[in-house]
This record gives sequence, C-alpha cells and structure tokens, in this order.
Amino acid sequence: MSTHAAPTPTENGKTPRTERGRKTLRKLLDAAALEFGEHGFHDASITGITRRAGTALGSFYTYFDSKDEIFRALVKDLSNGVREAVKARHDPDGPALEQEREALTAFLQFAREHKEIYRIIDESEFVDPASFRAHYQNTANRMFERLQSGVAKGELREGLEEAHAWAIMGMNVFLGLRYAVWSDEEKAEAIAEVANGVLRHGIAKEKGI
Amino acid sequence: MSTHAAPTPTENGKTPRTERGRKTLRKLLDAAALEFGEHGFHDASITGITRRAGTALGSFYTYFDSKDEIFRALVKDLSNGVREAVKARHDPDGPALEQEREALTAFLQFAREHKEIYRIIDESEFVDPASFRAHYQNTANRMFERLQSGVAKGELREGLEEAHAWAIMGMNVFLGLRYAVWSDEEKAEAIAEVANGVLRHGIAKEKGI
Repeated sequence: MSTHAAPTPTENGKTPRTERGRKTLRKLLDAAALEFGEHGFHDASITGITRRAGTALGSFYTYFDSKDEIFRALVKDLSNGVREAVKARHDPDGPALEQEREALTAFLQFAREHKEIYRIIDESEFVDPASFRAHYQNTANRMFERLQSGVAKGELREGLEEAHAWAIMGMNVFLGLRYAVWSDEEKAEAIAEVANGVLRHGIAKEKGI
Repeated sequence: MSTHAAPTPTENGKTPRTERGRKTLRKLLDAAALEFGEHGFHDASITGITRRAGTALGSFYTYFDSKDEIFRALVKDLSNGVREAVKARHDPDGPALEQEREALTAFLQFAREHKEIYRIIDESEFVDPASFRAHYQNTANRMFERLQSGVAKGELREGLEEAHAWAIMGMNVFLGLRYAVWSDEEKAEAIAEVANGVLRHGIAKEKGI
C-alpha cells in the first residue's frame, strides 16, 4: 500500500545496503504505520509489526533497537512521504497559486492513502515531541520558500511572512483531517479549490458587484 | 488563572447548586488542566488534581467518578472556554471580516492564557475521540454560521461552504500552535492581521499594479 517507495534511512547508520534490505525496511515501516495507527503507541508491539510485515523478529532488530526508535523513524518517513508526494506534483515553473493547489491535492491524496498519518503525527506530540515539531516546522519552511519564490516572481503579494505559511499549512491540515481522514467522499480537487479560492481572492465579496 | 468563570456542568447531573460548589468545581477543572497539561492523561492522577486545587479528595468524587470523567469534562470546558472567549469579543452587527479578526484575536489570547489547551485537545484524540471530534465540529459549525451570515449581508462571497469554515479554523489553530503556544512574542493582533489579510484579499498580487 505504500506510495513512497524509498524508505527513510534509520538512525545510527543502519541503512540497508541491498535492494532486499530496502524492501524489508519498507515493509517494516509500512507495517509500523498500520500497527501504530490501529493501536496507538502504547498498545502497539514489535511482534505486531513483524507479524504484519511478514518478517522475522531478527529483521526488526537489524534496523531498530526499540519500539521508540521505529516510531521516530516512522514519523520521519511519513513526513518525507508528504514531501515527496508534493514534490512529485510540483512544477517549479508553474504559477505560484497553482503550485499551492497541486501541493494540497497531493497532500490530500497522500492522506487518503495513509489515513493513519494523522493519528501518528498527532501522537508524536506526546511520544516524540521533537519529531512532531520538526515535521511541522520543515513543512512550513518548504511552503514559505515557495511563497517567497512566488513573491520574487511578482505573482504573490509583497510582505508574506512565515506566519502566512503556518496559516496555509493549517488550512491544508484541517481540510485533510475533515475531507481525507473523517470522510473522503468529496473530490480532492474540489477541496483543493476551496483553499485555492481563499488564496486567490479571499472570501470577501468583490467590490462594486 | 481561569478566564472562563462558570464551570461547564459535569455529566450525570452533578451540577453544583451553591456558589461555593461552583467555585470548587472551577478549581478542580483548572487544576485538571494543569495536571493533564503537564503530565499527559496516563501519568496524571486524581490526587495530583486535588493537591493543585487545594481541595479534599471527597470534593473530587462529589463531581466526578474517575480520571476519565474529569478529562471529558475538561475538554468540554476548554471547548466552551474558547466559545465564550470568542463570544465576549463578538459584535454581531460588526463587519463579517472584523468578526473573524476578533474571533482569532480572542482565540490567540485564550490559548496564551491556557497553553495547555493544545496538549489536552490533542490528547483527547486518543483518550476520548468523541470529545475531540465534537470540539472541532462545533467550532467549525459556529464559524460556518458566521460566514453564512456574512454572505446573507452581502459582505462575503456567495457559495462559501463548510469546507471554508474548516480551512479558516485550521489557519487559526496552526497560528495558535506556532504563535501562542510555541512562542508568544508577536502581538496577537499582528498574527490575526496575517489571517485577516488572507481572508480579505488572498495572497495573490493585485492585478495591474
């Protein structure tokens, strides 16, 4: 079910050197997403992860020392998964507002395919606060860079600040919670258009109409 | 430290009938906010709450049967606290966009005075998912009602949907996380203006300038 194939290297340099190793690590991370997503950190178990992954317990310890360590690796992996999904739809030469539309559409689709992402990122606030903070700060930084590039190209308003990136990220995260995780009946494109309309012209009625 | 004086009635009709009872309940809920905020649900204890509140253990059981029950009551109380803080600054005859600016300013100030609110609402996703969902759905509903009233008055664009309320709520929640909880150096009014600018005119550069 994974849509982001290359696993994020784990801590302590335990990066797989073979294609088979990479596949095993990918399986473990995908299984961890399901296990933590279903049971939460405290009730999730390493044997639950290896059972879902169909790997031996020894394979787990080849890459991770503990449940904490795979959880941290998983948060980073999901965070990278979002980044890669956005990057795959990203056209750096496209209009700035279209870039934001594509980024949100990619995020909504990623969240629909990995509904456990919310539970895992949200639980990281308690299990691993540094990863939680890094995920949102990195995402906001990437968005702020896109906004600054849109300002430089003369497409976006002067004076956009980091707070604008946080505001737009918040829109995206809550639209994902409501329209990717709680319900996914509406088209991702329609939801992305709601956010894009706000960015394009706000919600105030046009003057003189 | 509480800014929302009237405690939310607890479950099972255990509403205090006297002013003294109301004060005790208020003290217990404020103490619970600090205890859960500092230790999280699992490590928080009833005796930790009554010690902070300076009340006898018996007073706790006058109003609550368990740690779960006071946690649920606390999420509802904080949710109502946000609603009341927004209501206190709300001018139903004011321009629609000013209403949103005031709502966000009130929320940011409430979050700065109750920094534990994020941790508690976020933890409710795991401890008490129904309260988590109710908090955001109720907040989105109130915001959507304000938006619809702005459309009816001809101030906001036709066709605003529930998704617009979720988008704006997400902006507000993430601005609060970054600029009320993680850091509160910037003025609440300046942060509210960032969001209000987005609602007023989006982030695209004006045409023909």
